[in-house]
Amino acid sequence: MISKITPWEVPSKIDYGKLMKEFGLESFGKLPEQFNKNMLFRRKIIFGHRDFSRIATAVENKQPFVMMTGLMPSGKFHFGHKMVAEQMIFYQKLGAKVYITVADVEAYNSRIPDMGQLRTTAIEEYLMNYAALGLDLRKCDFYFQSMRSKDGKKASAYYSLANMLARHVTFNEFKAIYGDISPGKMASSLLQASDMLHAQLPQFEGPMPVVVPVGCDQDPHLRLARDMSQRIKGFNFIQLSSTYHKFMPGLKGGKMSSSDPTSYIALTDSPEEASKKIMKYAFSGGRDSLEEHRKKGGNPDVDVSFQMLKFALEPDDDKLSAIYNNYKDGKLLSGELKQIATEKIAAFLKEHRQKMEKSRVPVQRFVEEQGF
Amino acid sequence: MISKITPWEVPSKIDYGKLMKEFGLESFGKLPEQFNKNMLFRRKIIFGHRDFSRIATAVENKQPFVMMTGLMPSGKFHFGHKMVAEQMIFYQKLGAKVYITVADVEAYNSRIPDMGQLRTTAIEEYLMNYAALGLDLRKCDFYFQSMRSKDGKKASAYYSLANMLARHVTFNEFKAIYGDISPGKMASSLLQASDMLHAQLPQFEGPMPVVVPVGCDQDPHLRLARDMSQRIKGFNFIQLSSTYHKFMPGLKGGKMSSSDPTSYIALTDSPEEASKKIMKYAFSGGRDSLEEHRKKGGNPDVDVSFQMLKFALEPDDDKLSAIYNNYKDGKLLSGELKQIATEKIAAFLKEHRQKMEKSRVPVQRFVEEQGF
Repeated sequence: MISKITPWEVPSKIDYGKLMKEFGLESFGKLPEQFNKNMLFRRKIIFGHRDFSRIATAVENKQPFVMMTGLMPSGKFHFGHKMVAEQMIFYQKLGAKVYITVADVEAYNSRIPDMGQLRTTAIEEYLMNYAALGLDLRKCDFYFQSMRSKDGKKASAYYSLANMLARHVTFNEFKAIYGDISPGKMASSLLQASDMLHAQLPQFEGPMPVVVPVGCDQDPHLRLARDMSQRIKGFNFIQLSSTYHKFMPGLKGGKMSSSDPTSYIALTDSPEEASKKIMKYAFSGGRDSLEEHRKKGGNPDVDVSFQMLKFALEPDDDKLSAIYNNYKDGKLLSGELKQIATEKIAAFLKEHRQKMEKSRVPVQRFVEEQGF
Repeated sequence: MISKITPWEVPSKIDYGKLMKEFGLESFGKLPEQFNKNMLFRRKIIFGHRDFSRIATAVENKQPFVMMTGLMPSGKFHFGHKMVAEQMIFYQKLGAKVYITVADVEAYNSRIPDMGQLRTTAIEEYLMNYAALGLDLRKCDFYFQSMRSKDGKKASAYYSLANMLARHVTFNEFKAIYGDISPGKMASSLLQASDMLHAQLPQFEGPMPVVVPVGCDQDPHLRLARDMSQRIKGFNFIQLSSTYHKFMPGLKGGKMSSSDPTSYIALTDSPEEASKKIMKYAFSGGRDSLEEHRKKGGNPDVDVSFQMLKFALEPDDDKLSAIYNNYKDGKLLSGELKQIATEKIAAFLKEHRQKMEKSRVPVQRFVEEQGF
């Protein structure tokens, strides 16, 4: 099982319970009240962690901490990405300094050798949507792996950490964690470890708790960064914390894929496009006939429309619960469930489009200030 | 043979003719007049090259070009290092922009995990001696692999080039070139390729001829950088030029080793220490008895005192030639040859010590300006 969940390949059906045991992830105990207000935590979509207690403590005691995450600038910004953005915004409101890396070097080394295109996608798709969703650009450190900072001492420290980490890992470890490994992948992994750790360098925040929220496919990167961080001397890195969220299913029930627009709804899709996609592609948990559905009920756990409500669109637990039960009991039909989802999506996309328009100028200003 | 000459291991006796064939190095044809004034070129201590014609052309036509070299900040600055410094100064006077990298990340990854000590050695031993020997600090770009530039765009471009080069090389190539390879060595090799190539990035000089003068043990790095430079798209790198110099023999006839002070004379040794080392350790090409020496003559080609005169201390070819012949004919005794070398060294070291004193303030100012 472990060998199948690598950052390069995600099987479409995952037994999260089994995975927690095999990866050695912990489930959440009692968390500070603020976490209960977050839908993803409350609904256990964020289902496991490593060393999260020091983040909970920092939040409780209002001590400084960092949230670090990244994006791979390929294709459209969709609801899967939105789930990550919601976590950025949540932690930012909790007081975290938010570090966001554009993994353009990793993208270059793995599949997209056009740095200009990567830059445009990162800004036009990701940064624009982050801002529209409510990320405060003034309170985050958004950067490109290929261009860390206008400050050369900061930039040098970030890259040199990646290069120095290379001393503290063996090829056999890379192979054990990733399976097949090429020089490009190895360079990307080291850089990604620095993405996670460099906030603690003296040129940045200094040693402090850092939480990295990821999908479980990213855990190999975490394990490697955690191991190396404790071997390298002189920096006194506090061990990384991480949380693991479930994958939002693709429209057709499998994996969301940036290269297949019928597998996701983009936040820049028009309400009409989105409705069409839901009606045409969204995998249904309903029965083959109306009669059978009324009698045996549907399966909301595999129904993509329901999952979209659960992951993103229905913040009210009671309402979500009612939909769940009605569908399971056969009172709610698949077409009706799709209708609910479609309306929610349409309302969201319409409002989001306006927010995108409002974000254009501040994003442009931010990009100019940062010198990207 | 090729597999034995790696950057990590140098056999003490090298057949340079054979090596040129096996590495595919060329010998020099007619060079511009200025090169004849340089002792190392004239005496064929710099014995071969790759693609040097575009450097000769640039010199002849007064076109801009770069000379790139590096230093490993371990131990004392000795006459072996001086030979490299002389080449920096020579090219600087020819109009080259001189790039000098302190390979502190490479040193960290291979053997010396103390970045503070590496920094001190680089400045106190290397930079100080460069300046004392006549390097114009204002006309060179001296930097640390761990701290490329105060300008974050320059720094990011330098490190990102190393990371992007990783896409354009395979593990099998690393293995074929270096033999055994670890993540630390691989990261160092990629960074060293960027050392050689980054002068041609738009953030630095743009595409132009670059010459890298090396000992033949460094050729694997060159071959790798040359190959990758032609595979990576979008930068239009002009192929690197390189020259190859012979190894100055260690005092005892073998290799100079930074960890063995009896194998070299440091430029900060006192004249007395230096004399003692020559008298006690310098390998002699003389015969076992005075009688035999007078009759059969000595062998200047293996005599370390003679080699020091040839590599560094006797700029006059006629005088050097007379010493060579007199020694070979048995007219000059080994003790007398040692005496000549000792006097030359003593005079040099005395003058050099004064120049070192004068360099202290400008070097300090330079280090502060650069923000190292």
